[in-house]
Amino acid sequence: MIITISREFGSGGRELGKRLAEALGIACYDNEIITMLARDSGMDEEYIRGISEKNIQSVYATTIGRRLSMTSSPALKQAISVVSEQRRIIELLAKQGDCVIVGRCADEILKDYHPMNLFVYADQQAKLHRCIQRAPEGEHLSQAQLERKMKQIDRERARLHDLFAENSWGDKAGYHLCINTTGVQIKDLIPALTAYVRAWFSMCNG
Amino acid sequence: MIITISREFGSGGRELGKRLAEALGIACYDNEIITMLARDSGMDEEYIRGISEKNIQSVYATTIGRRLSMTSSPALKQAISVVSEQRRIIELLAKQGDCVIVGRCADEILKDYHPMNLFVYADQQAKLHRCIQRAPEGEHLSQAQLERKMKQIDRERARLHDLFAENSWGDKAGYHLCINTTGVQIKDLIPALTAYVRAWFSMCNG
Repeated sequence: MIITISREFGSGGRELGKRLAEALGIACYDNEIITMLARDSGMDEEYIRGISEKNIQSVYATTIGRRLSMTSSPALKQAISVVSEQRRIIELLAKQGDCVIVGRCADEILKDYHPMNLFVYADQQAKLHRCIQRAPEGEHLSQAQLERKMKQIDRERARLHDLFAENSWGDKAGYHLCINTTGVQIKDLIPALTAYVRAWFSMCNG
Repeated sequence: MIITISREFGSGGRELGKRLAEALGIACYDNEIITMLARDSGMDEEYIRGISEKNIQSVYATTIGRRLSMTSSPALKQAISVVSEQRRIIELLAKQGDCVIVGRCADEILKDYHPMNLFVYADQQAKLHRCIQRAPEGEHLSQAQLERKMKQIDRERARLHDLFAENSWGDKAGYHLCINTTGVQIKDLIPALTAYVRAWFSMCNG
């Protein structure tokens, strides 16, 4: 039972993943993957975070279609090694047992494991409201800054995903269920969602 | 509790609507709307079906932005009267009580009633398989013919919807839950889906 969560920034996808995993009694991996990567590689967590979710698309974009010698830059080599290491860790986690994995292109990386892929989204107002309520301590962005940040993060997620995957990030065709969290309390959806996930697995992988 | 179902042709949206309504103990309207229209207007059901789901978009397209005198064609007048009568019936049904309404732009028509909008979809192979299994007696379409029919019907649904609505037909932003029926037995999803719908209404309209 492997469940991947893709999500728009601010939609509550991470909360949904954590709560769903808890209800199903299985592991949930999100930032844990970065921590493992840092531990295994001896690199700084923040540095890895930068590579693994953000810069790798530009790294890949500059590599594809260029001479192999281009990949000789040490920064590029390191970025590629982080991505392939992240892929290895995600596969390892999937082999270890049932789990929920939030983000990190796990839907694509774990394709052969037949995961159930969820997409979590919400309307702009709901996402803004959520971001404001859950802003890290000390972060005081204006609404315009927040909107820019949301847009940028989602664009990076989409680009990174679309480098590897057949379906576009956020295109419902690539997911088994798309959940709009506008106006709802995520925790109150969990019992029904848990039942849905169980029913789906008993049919699809049973 | 008003639930609208939009669906790709062959995805099982109608079956899902019927079963969901049954599980919730509420009415489900689909072809019943056409029957009511025929009864009220004295027009032929097949004729109404043609206008209400297919040709009205071209009727509207030719009207919008043209001189009012253009609407004096009797066929056009009749088509417009069918559409507005359908709208009236859908609103009447919504006022009568909790229900599921399949198709007919009910998501848009009933906007002010704050319905829960579901979108049902599946991958091409799953839809083809379903269409072949459920073909009306005497219908023997080749796969190519069936694919053309599926595409055409969905295109008509999209066009009709997008004439009235803010969000595009099938764009997940316009729905509260998008359900991929590929590889699943719809009836086995119903208990979880019923729980989801109940939870949603207790939060959103409670």
